[in-house]
Amino acid sequence: MRHVATESGLDIAPSAVARYHAAAEELADEARRIVRAALDRGFTTEAKPDHSPVTSVDRAVEDRWRELIGRWFPGHGVTGEEAPPSHPDSAFQWILDPIDGTEEFVRGIPTYGCMLALHHRGAPVVGVIEHPGLDLRVTAAIGRGAYRNGARVRLPAEPPAGRREALRLVLSARVNFVRHVDEGHLFEALTRTYPNHRIYRAAYAHTVVVTGAADVMVDVQNHIWDVAPSRVLVEEAGGRFELVRDVTAPDGDRILSAVFGQPRLVGEVAALFTAPGPAPR
Amino acid sequence: MRHVATESGLDIAPSAVARYHAAAEELADEARRIVRAALDRGFTTEAKPDHSPVTSVDRAVEDRWRELIGRWFPGHGVTGEEAPPSHPDSAFQWILDPIDGTEEFVRGIPTYGCMLALHHRGAPVVGVIEHPGLDLRVTAAIGRGAYRNGARVRLPAEPPAGRREALRLVLSARVNFVRHVDEGHLFEALTRTYPNHRIYRAAYAHTVVVTGAADVMVDVQNHIWDVAPSRVLVEEAGGRFELVRDVTAPDGDRILSAVFGQPRLVGEVAALFTAPGPAPR
Repeated sequence: MRHVATESGLDIAPSAVARYHAAAEELADEARRIVRAALDRGFTTEAKPDHSPVTSVDRAVEDRWRELIGRWFPGHGVTGEEAPPSHPDSAFQWILDPIDGTEEFVRGIPTYGCMLALHHRGAPVVGVIEHPGLDLRVTAAIGRGAYRNGARVRLPAEPPAGRREALRLVLSARVNFVRHVDEGHLFEALTRTYPNHRIYRAAYAHTVVVTGAADVMVDVQNHIWDVAPSRVLVEEAGGRFELVRDVTAPDGDRILSAVFGQPRLVGEVAALFTAPGPAPR
Repeated sequence: MRHVATESGLDIAPSAVARYHAAAEELADEARRIVRAALDRGFTTEAKPDHSPVTSVDRAVEDRWRELIGRWFPGHGVTGEEAPPSHPDSAFQWILDPIDGTEEFVRGIPTYGCMLALHHRGAPVVGVIEHPGLDLRVTAAIGRGAYRNGARVRLPAEPPAGRREALRLVLSARVNFVRHVDEGHLFEALTRTYPNHRIYRAAYAHTVVVTGAADVMVDVQNHIWDVAPSRVLVEEAGGRFELVRDVTAPDGDRILSAVFGQPRLVGEVAALFTAPGPAPR
């Protein structure tokens, strides 16, 4: 078996990738179990300093993930939404968003998801999005392909034919476009150019594009844990991933925007991010 | 038991409303059975003249609904998306959208829904939205309350407190806002004013607002079967429904736009539809 070379210069044995992939699946199984038990038994919710909600379930999933990763891969680093990083200098980093879309989870909207990824010096090795409320999971590992509930996913090589309305764009809500930098004009440009769009405000937005149920996702002004699994997921499905923004916010947070999906469409959508903005009024 | 008076001047016995409500639940059961069998066994898809998809499942559900309504209520009229009306002069009209969100259904996105309503001279008596892919159904009948999977739904009397971002708007995609009349400026106004929004492009958009999982829905330039159940659903849940557009398109179709949801918010959202449009450029 040939070794897989990552962009980060890692020459990694397929058996090692398989082991990381299997570990990520087990972490997703744990998340599914914890979330479903909480849906039966109830959970508590509080507001974080940025006004976004966090629940006892977010914390329970992240704690369990950190415990298992620490046991299985004691040298690996962990970056997660709900606790400080551990081993920040390790080449291998697990990046965790225990519940992406907590606002949806709290309201009973099943588009939330548990997102996790393993990166090596910033290059993705494994990515998983688990949707406990939809009986749905997507996983991928470098050189091993992308899977939807265990079935191989291959995005179509050609974009949808015909009218502009045939193209299905998924994007962030406008609140994201003005969260750190005012890029509201990009929301207007995207929704005018691609009028057949969806806005889910949660991990499911990524999953529909990774599985080809929509064509392109535009995820704007988010943190690393909101997009960490998506690059390997979409690339292993035969799609393309472009990081269109990578900036440091005034509070020191790293803020990312990404365009990904059907390989022939990502370039034209990403081009809107390099076009000049509107003239000042 | 007191009779229920509809806006249309019908003085109707509670037992009759209960019978219509039970019939609508049975129709939803049939739809769930047909859709789930089709998901197991497969179905065919073709494009309608307006380029939107229709499947063998849309037709099977509407045929079955028409057969049962014809047997149970032979004098009632039926208006449906996929076949010509029957008994168009009857005071009672069943209004059917066998699969709202066929584009989602075909792609495996579970936000599609089977929508049906009974109206009396235009006033709603019963409304149902069944989501076979989400184990979710909302039903309501005039004077009998609104229900989510059999549990009574009551919308909060007060809107969410705090920042503007706490308010959750669901709206049509921009393609709807320019479908018959160019009201693209309203899409811009709504998404700027309420930046925490979702766009599902299917029946689930109504269900999240009827159940209080989001605050207000703005459904733009649609047909009667796309909004027929929503008024009685939201009003029986304690919410408010405003028809903000009711026009005849050049092709003779009746085109409706509606704002509905949390009672204290509907007025302010609907007011955007009476504000002057942008100055011509």
